[in-house]
Amino acid sequence: MARDLNADCIAACHACADACDHCATACLQEADIKPMAHCIALDMECAAICRLAASSMARGSEFAKRICGLCALVCDACAEACARHEHEHCRACAAACVTCAAACRRMAAV
Amino acid sequence: MARDLNADCIAACHACADACDHCATACLQEADIKPMAHCIALDMECAAICRLAASSMARGSEFAKRICGLCALVCDACAEACARHEHEHCRACAAACVTCAAACRRMAAV
Amino acid sequence: MARDLNADCIAACHACADACDHCATACLQEADIKPMAHCIALDMECAAICRLAASSMARGSEFAKRICGLCALVCDACAEACARHEHEHCRACAAACVTCAAACRRMAAV
Amino acid sequence: MARDLNADCIAACHACADACDHCATACLQEADIKPMAHCIALDMECAAICRLAASSMARGSEFAKRICGLCALVCDACAEACARHEHEHCRACAAACVTCAAACRRMAAV
Repeated sequence: MARDLNADCIAACHACADACDHCATACLQEADIKPMAHCIALDMECAAICRLAASSMARGSEFAKRICGLCALVCDACAEACARHEHEHCRACAAACVTCAAACRRMAAV
Repeated sequence: MARDLNADCIAACHACADACDHCATACLQEADIKPMAHCIALDMECAAICRLAASSMARGSEFAKRICGLCALVCDACAEACARHEHEHCRACAAACVTCAAACRRMAAV
Repeated sequence: MARDLNADCIAACHACADACDHCATACLQEADIKPMAHCIALDMECAAICRLAASSMARGSEFAKRICGLCALVCDACAEACARHEHEHCRACAAACVTCAAACRRMAAV
Repeated sequence: MARDLNADCIAACHACADACDHCATACLQEADIKPMAHCIALDMECAAICRLAASSMARGSEFAKRICGLCALVCDACAEACARHEHEHCRACAAACVTCAAACRRMAAV
């Protein structure tokens, strides 16, 4: 069961990192970028910590839970920033962040 | 079709990075580590470039193809090193590396 | 001598990665972001591969030279994009990219 | 002053990440690797979070302090593991970890 929890959380982190990376690029291609500046900044931050969390879990690191706990906070912030925009990439990113935050919290609480 | 190719390659890079990270840790827990030293070193290298390649593709980077081309070479080397060992984690890692190398070459050739 | 070359290139990669990360954030705080969209995208790309190159050299990886060769190309592109703007962070980033590209080429040619 | 603190902490993270990456590779080249297994595992973990912390500070991220706080804990663990060994690369790595932990704690406390 712990293995499934781990695998689920790694998958959620991958999906969230990709959604954030994609959202950052897509935001930069919108006609009006200014309103998305915070969203782009958080996308970068969230993608980076999600990739670290996935790697840390894959290594079975003793710090994986703490990294997941912090990752959940970054996902929360990114989800909130993305949810303010109607763009499809922002919607998709917000959803991936919400899923990832929940998975990371389950992981951190084991 | 390009999108599917991209998604397939990202998934292969994620799977390979996780298999490499896991293999490195598992190698370090074996009774006799010395024969796996090169395998561990390549696991670290391969996991790192696979995560960069996935991120680069997710960002739609103009350098994604070149990064995938280089990633394929690292996957080749890691697959060869892992294939010399009978441990299940090495077998799984070698298989993930072979799959990822092929996906990265398809991506690099587009 | 090889060690000094290595140390110089690692230092150049660190400096470039930081300049790119800083430039991306600073660009997002400018009044008019649209003209900097490509600069921001390349900043992200360049920071990521510079950090991989530094790590790869620090590990003494057999792939460090190839990664440095590719890193030089990304630095070239980022330098060119940043040099089009008058902002101090873009100027500083372009200079760091030029220095890093040269150091990476020396490394790749050893 | 905040800028200097930031610059000092970024420099300490770079130095620590490089020392950890180098120590992991050097440990794998020792005659007897088994006693260094935990050291190698923590080297990987510490290098990864140090590079994230440096990047996060360079971006001026709102999460930089929290990442530094967690980075300090990983540095503590890595310093303790490395300090048990007499190899020069372990000694150098332990020292870099101690310096980085202190810098990250100052950053986290601002």
